Amino acid sequence: MEIIIKKFGGSSVGSVDRIKKVARMIVSSKKKNQGLVVVVSAMGDTTDRLIDMAYKVNPYPDARELDMLLSTGEQVSISLLAMAILNLGNSVVSLTGPQVGIYTDKIHKRARIVEVKTTRIMKELHKNKIVIVAGFQGVNQNNDITTLGRGGSDTTAVALAAALNAKKCEIYTDVDGVYSGDPRMIENAYKLKEISYDEMLEMASLGAKVLHPRAVELAKQYNVKLEVKSSFSDERGTEVKGVDEMEGVLRVSGVTCDKKIAKIAILKVPDKPGVAYKVFNNLSKANIYVDMIIQSIRHDNVNDISFTVPEDDLDETIAIMEKTADELGAEGIVYDKHVAKVSIIGAGMGNKSRVAMKMFQALAEEGINIQMISTSEIKISCLIDLNSAEKAMKAIHNKFLVNGIEIVKKQSVV
Amino acid sequence: MEIIIKKFGGSSVGSVDRIKKVARMIVSSKKKNQGLVVVVSAMGDTTDRLIDMAYKVNPYPDARELDMLLSTGEQVSISLLAMAILNLGNSVVSLTGPQVGIYTDKIHKRARIVEVKTTRIMKELHKNKIVIVAGFQGVNQNNDITTLGRGGSDTTAVALAAALNAKKCEIYTDVDGVYSGDPRMIENAYKLKEISYDEMLEMASLGAKVLHPRAVELAKQYNVKLEVKSSFSDERGTEVKGVDEMEGVLRVSGVTCDKKIAKIAILKVPDKPGVAYKVFNNLSKANIYVDMIIQSIRHDNVNDISFTVPEDDLDETIAIMEKTADELGAEGIVYDKHVAKVSIIGAGMGNKSRVAMKMFQALAEEGINIQMISTSEIKISCLIDLNSAEKAMKAIHNKFLVNGIEIVKKQSVV
Repeated sequence: MEIIIKKFGGSSVGSVDRIKKVARMIVSSKKKNQGLVVVVSAMGDTTDRLIDMAYKVNPYPDARELDMLLSTGEQVSISLLAMAILNLGNSVVSLTGPQVGIYTDKIHKRARIVEVKTTRIMKELHKNKIVIVAGFQGVNQNNDITTLGRGGSDTTAVALAAALNAKKCEIYTDVDGVYSGDPRMIENAYKLKEISYDEMLEMASLGAKVLHPRAVELAKQYNVKLEVKSSFSDERGTEVKGVDEMEGVLRVSGVTCDKKIAKIAILKVPDKPGVAYKVFNNLSKANIYVDMIIQSIRHDNVNDISFTVPEDDLDETIAIMEKTADELGAEGIVYDKHVAKVSIIGAGMGNKSRVAMKMFQALAEEGINIQMISTSEIKISCLIDLNSAEKAMKAIHNKFLVNGIEIVKKQSVV
Repeated sequence: MEIIIKKFGGSSVGSVDRIKKVARMIVSSKKKNQGLVVVVSAMGDTTDRLIDMAYKVNPYPDARELDMLLSTGEQVSISLLAMAILNLGNSVVSLTGPQVGIYTDKIHKRARIVEVKTTRIMKELHKNKIVIVAGFQGVNQNNDITTLGRGGSDTTAVALAAALNAKKCEIYTDVDGVYSGDPRMIENAYKLKEISYDEMLEMASLGAKVLHPRAVELAKQYNVKLEVKSSFSDERGTEVKGVDEMEGVLRVSGVTCDKKIAKIAILKVPDKPGVAYKVFNNLSKANIYVDMIIQSIRHDNVNDISFTVPEDDLDETIAIMEKTADELGAEGIVYDKHVAKVSIIGAGMGNKSRVAMKMFQALAEEGINIQMISTSEIKISCLIDLNSAEKAMKAIHNKFLVNGIEIVKKQSVV
């Protein structure tokens, strides 16, 4: 049996009318001898509303009890969607995460899936039923309900696709695909036909909020073919797949921007072995994700160490760094929230220096100063002043993606 | 370990503030080395709101999916109540019906409990945790969520009390006990200190909406001591227990009235064997509950058969009876919705004829005509005109319960 997974987010099932519309979409797409498994999130703002109630009874709600509470959101959507599909005359059954057997570790609020049972789903599919599964939730070994954290329904969909060996996992959302840049900022941004897992990961973690990074990682690990598409139209979306399954890769496929970032520097650190270890070990212990790092050498055997952290972690980072600066005998620290990180992403970057030069040229032509640079296999990022972010993205997009799309043929990538 | 079960209905947990209040009540009643298990219903009008949504997506919502939907209501209450208790510094855990292991038959929307597992609850009680259990819900052998129908949370509480061999099962509600008559109609009605299961059953099925009859039946079967009390005060409520555990029984403990009743008569039925069987067999097949029955003998070998049915079943009863009258060659049918059944209930009725005479006297003194009479071990009911219902109740209450409470000592009952 060919199995297809479809995932609908909270806004797609945000009202009774939308639920009916999704039901019609599902029923009209159902093919004979095809197993259809649909993953849904909680309706619209249900989760926020439940969290509000929780904080009203307890300013520090317990993680286990919060999972118990929040998991009701998806249970409401799956039953209503099942009823709407029954109303169209199709056979259907709804299942919670625990009923499917989506086993997770014991960490509440951000559990990780450890095993997905397929017995119950396969039984229902063989009865020719459409199976509606509650996203975002699972059950741990103690038979307690767990939730998967932000983007959890994407993860549920991909995990099911992997476990059921599905042909495809379609992620329906309120955008109609993955774009070469944010269409709200870059007028001539266009929808990508396909993108590789690694590119999507960079896109996802750099601010394109289409797919949760954990879901993409999982898809990559199990080679699950994803398609991101609109829940409001029938148009083709963007396929996310392995580089070896793509027709050809773009040297640069997209431009992204992260404005929720801050730069911090520890000044005049004595140049001794173990200094960088000391700095970053303290941050790592506090679970702070450090991104770009630069160590610049001054004279007199002292260095400046600069790096970026998520804006939300800045206060904690400052506290840790002030203590660290004291311990190391450094001069002190400085920080700046007024920065943005613009990046180009492309699985076909091959000769990176040429691509990097072109990016730096685009920024130079606009008179934008580059504060920090970092690179990976498939991306190049520049830290710039926050005010220049939009101008920078447009310039880079024009340089690479409008006048100069370069497709690298399959054979030349590997 | 001494175990106490407490059950709070929907209005007791109808808002965040009430949940906090219930949490304080629970915590302040918690004794050392005592196992406390709390059963809660869905908040206020949650169930109605969910049913509304269901009918909006499907005018004939599927029973299984409706159970999936409705069971979220209690899951929200248990998690919020657990959070509120945690906020007071007490150790607590919430459990759904399926998590406890409340196994039911396969009938959705009105499932019957077939087994209650105690392992998980006992494990949590031994960790000195207060255990909050979702009322109204269970799980069937297929691992599907079921609900127990109206009054289901009462049934959950009693079933848990039986399975856990609890010392007592306290039902907190918006009235503070069981009264000798409806206080809204009878000014001098008073709260009963104790009442027997059978009396309570008659009370419950005759219109005193304090406890669901199924819960009382179950309590009787497993000899679970119940106490009905107010969730808004600390006052003693009414204990419901076996006759042999009562200090003494009242000859008459209460007066009730059922206005949702209709009388129907099939006229001039030929007096042949099997006629009554034919009449009531057809009603029984349609699941219509027939209460009072009178067969009056006319001359010429024809009888009139009269009986009462719940008002809601009248239309269906008329249809069935018209067909039956045809088949039997009867003259036709007549019916009357303008009737009420007033009853006196008492485990100590012993010499029934004396009690009955006193009841008839009370009605006669008010000039109220008695249309039908029925009796059981612990009750006497009279069908009267609907307009006289209130007057009748007051007269009966005054006759038996104000001026003449008669307590029958224990030894004289058995």
